[in-house]
Amino acid sequence: MESVRHILRVEQFDRAWVDDTLLPVTQRLLGEWPAQALAGKEIFNLFQQPSFLTRLAFSRAVRRLGGQHEQADFENAFTAEGRRQTIEDEVRILNGLEYAAILVRADTAGGAERAAAVSTVPVINAGEPAHRAALGSAQHPTQALSDLATIEHALGRIDGLHVVIVPGDGASLVIVQSLAMLLGRVCRELRLTLAVRPALTPLFNELGEYLAAQGVECRIVHDIRPAASDADVLYFAQANNLHLGVAERYRAPGEEPGVFVLTQEILDLLPQAAVIMHPLPRNIGASSAVPAELPEAFTGDPRVRCFEQARMKHVVAGALLYILLGG
Amino acid sequence: MESVRHILRVEQFDRAWVDDTLLPVTQRLLGEWPAQALAGKEIFNLFQQPSFLTRLAFSRAVRRLGGQHEQADFENAFTAEGRRQTIEDEVRILNGLEYAAILVRADTAGGAERAAAVSTVPVINAGEPAHRAALGSAQHPTQALSDLATIEHALGRIDGLHVVIVPGDGASLVIVQSLAMLLGRVCRELRLTLAVRPALTPLFNELGEYLAAQGVECRIVHDIRPAASDADVLYFAQANNLHLGVAERYRAPGEEPGVFVLTQEILDLLPQAAVIMHPLPRNIGASSAVPAELPEAFTGDPRVRCFEQARMKHVVAGALLYILLGG
Amino acid sequence: MESVRHILRVEQFDRAWVDDTLLPVTQRLLGEWPAQALAGKEIFNLFQQPSFLTRLAFSRAVRRLGGQHEQADFENAFTAEGRRQTIEDEVRILNGLEYAAILVRADTAGGAERAAAVSTVPVINAGEPAHRAALGSAQHPTQALSDLATIEHALGRIDGLHVVIVPGDGASLVIVQSLAMLLGRVCRELRLTLAVRPALTPLFNELGEYLAAQGVECRIVHDIRPAASDADVLYFAQANNLHLGVAERYRAPGEEPGVFVLTQEILDLLPQAAVIMHPLPRNIGASSAVPAELPEAFTGDPRVRCFEQARMKHVVAGALLYILLGG
Repeated sequence: MESVRHILRVEQFDRAWVDDTLLPVTQRLLGEWPAQALAGKEIFNLFQQPSFLTRLAFSRAVRRLGGQHEQADFENAFTAEGRRQTIEDEVRILNGLEYAAILVRADTAGGAERAAAVSTVPVINAGEPAHRAALGSAQHPTQALSDLATIEHALGRIDGLHVVIVPGDGASLVIVQSLAMLLGRVCRELRLTLAVRPALTPLFNELGEYLAAQGVECRIVHDIRPAASDADVLYFAQANNLHLGVAERYRAPGEEPGVFVLTQEILDLLPQAAVIMHPLPRNIGASSAVPAELPEAFTGDPRVRCFEQARMKHVVAGALLYILLGG
Repeated sequence: MESVRHILRVEQFDRAWVDDTLLPVTQRLLGEWPAQALAGKEIFNLFQQPSFLTRLAFSRAVRRLGGQHEQADFENAFTAEGRRQTIEDEVRILNGLEYAAILVRADTAGGAERAAAVSTVPVINAGEPAHRAALGSAQHPTQALSDLATIEHALGRIDGLHVVIVPGDGASLVIVQSLAMLLGRVCRELRLTLAVRPALTPLFNELGEYLAAQGVECRIVHDIRPAASDADVLYFAQANNLHLGVAERYRAPGEEPGVFVLTQEILDLLPQAAVIMHPLPRNIGASSAVPAELPEAFTGDPRVRCFEQARMKHVVAGALLYILLGG
Repeated sequence: MESVRHILRVEQFDRAWVDDTLLPVTQRLLGEWPAQALAGKEIFNLFQQPSFLTRLAFSRAVRRLGGQHEQADFENAFTAEGRRQTIEDEVRILNGLEYAAILVRADTAGGAERAAAVSTVPVINAGEPAHRAALGSAQHPTQALSDLATIEHALGRIDGLHVVIVPGDGASLVIVQSLAMLLGRVCRELRLTLAVRPALTPLFNELGEYLAAQGVECRIVHDIRPAASDADVLYFAQANNLHLGVAERYRAPGEEPGVFVLTQEILDLLPQAAVIMHPLPRNIGASSAVPAELPEAFTGDPRVRCFEQARMKHVVAGALLYILLGG
């Protein structure tokens, strides 16, 4: 494949790049970080939407590689005043200030590609808001790449896997789409099960078709339990439980509710070698009425790897910066 | 005492630690800062509440010691969306990113201790909101430690003192409690006078009992004047004057109002060697109707030491970082 | 002239300083930046108002000169709580923390001068809000100085120029005033044309008188076209088009609307050697009903220099820091 200049979409990446570039560089940073790789370079974080983990994963990585970072704090203030300039103008300004790369969390889908179209330096898409237009029109490629690396690191392989994804609600659609698309592109003999609340099923039709076209065995079910006993990966995406209370109501009358959260029953079904993942934050708006998808009480189960996954997000952030800028 | 791992509560500290560790390291930084003591280390500022002085006191100290710092800017944005994760999850993420210490200004009392309970690195409590539950359930230990160092630096001693504290309103309760508890623990032959508006007296009963149990001569009065003429320290805590207008009204009808702000009359009563302190910001909501507790007009009086106190907060921040991480 | 200690007002600067100091240092930074000039120094950005370009222009410059910067992020939060302290107290605190300089974007005119009056280190005025009191009571000197450097760099001279300024609306008044006052002070044989919407004319009377007193040939017109064919510089200031819809309505009935935005007609009139400038952001609130003052479609015209101007703002920020602190 041609050399990577920007990180914008999961379709940019193939198995050869994962094997020859992503995983080896990630492995290196799991050991020692080359402390001067980005010396004299400064990265700009253009975050039009708030972020805790993605922003810090990169900011910390920049510094561990010897570089510096800056960010626009007042984006929201500008928006409130209607004073925002276009992302193209912002990028043109940032290019003039000689930042070495621009990390973009856009507030509308396609923002990172618009930034890249005018930028003279690499642009990294740090996640776009969920978007119900065509599949792939919004992307979160750095999350998908780091989740892939987490799986490889935890299981020692990325082929022959059964991955069960619990997509939460529409708010996490972009994470689910990007992850499933990437796994579909690079993992061989993949089986992918989406455990989806019935009312949300239509959101995943287009993804199912994409995966089928990639030769992936993909099915949509309405409960985790039937898929748990031979799962290698059980991936919970963020669910905004404030919304899900509503989604639950769309069940047909009398229908037994499916299980879409981690319970002791599921832990008992799940193989000992499986890994349980979550991109965090977890349990948004969980309450006594609406259950948490990854309860605090199970945090200590050795299969729960969500904090190793967060750490890997940081390590892969470092790997991507090194690949783009460190050579 | 056992070696200090976190800075969470004033009850952690005794006179031996103050004499053998805090004051000598502070004294050293009043001279030259060891410019590489934190080289390669990055501190995380987890500020769930805004702060001007405390945040900068530490951030600047980190850099003067050769380290770096990062912070979560978007805490408020997350809160607004109901997207906040628990402080425990935030700390687990930050640990994975290998920050060397976490500075916590929690939005609820006990937040720093919750953070420390899961953290693999030192946690420093950067102040908790005033809390009317049991004494000591909210703490501001770094303020109390630096105020102690300010007194020692200004007066050359911490024993045999008469300290007069004007607690303002309930908003500053945590500062008053932490300072009084620390002084009660480490200063010998301490006399402590609280000059409290009558309506707020019940807020200080529990503190009075704590100090009595430490052998401190403590009294509560309703005017600064009777205590001023033999005060060594006159300490004004922050008063939110917008609230105090209300507190004033609880006075009994016909009762003469006490004086709880700095006036020329009090400056005339106060010994020339006394020091006047204030943790800043001062005079919040002061107006023609509600007087300022430490008026701008008296800023130049040589006894007013509030800006040296702010500087000492920074120097002690450096000392605490050095003690926890610099060895 | 006496040596520059603070950067507060354009009236501080004369032609000798521009020729002997500003332009040579700027020219040097257009080549290589002295990477250790600010080593060990930290600058504080006290931004009471949001800023994209000005803040970054300086922050990036600090780092390229080997220094560090810090900022107050929570100013707005404090304001909301009514907890703000005076700018004088903030500066006294910052002085105690030994920042090497303070960059002030005040939320009221005169804030930077208040800061400088108590500061023990240099204060740089990073722009004040437009203010309709006496001319010069609000200032944006760093914008004016960098715009001057942009003109000199683009045209190779600052004398004998015809500068046409399109002031937008009142929101950009401070930029127009500071630029015109500076050009009036330092450029020889200057002709200055203000192309002003009729309803806004009274805002520029006092400026016209100032320039006349400097010997500048200044006129106010109500259309760009008559001034375009011999313009050397066509300078659009920010227009908040949300407001301008209102301003337009003040035209006399039946009067032909003037042209106050860049059009193909104006590009055809304008000399090939002219430069088109804009301090950015441009086209705030532009819509199908209200036209953009510098449309995206003309961005590629070689005379449009607004992004080189943004870059020069950064280079001049570096030059000013170097002049104040680097020696």
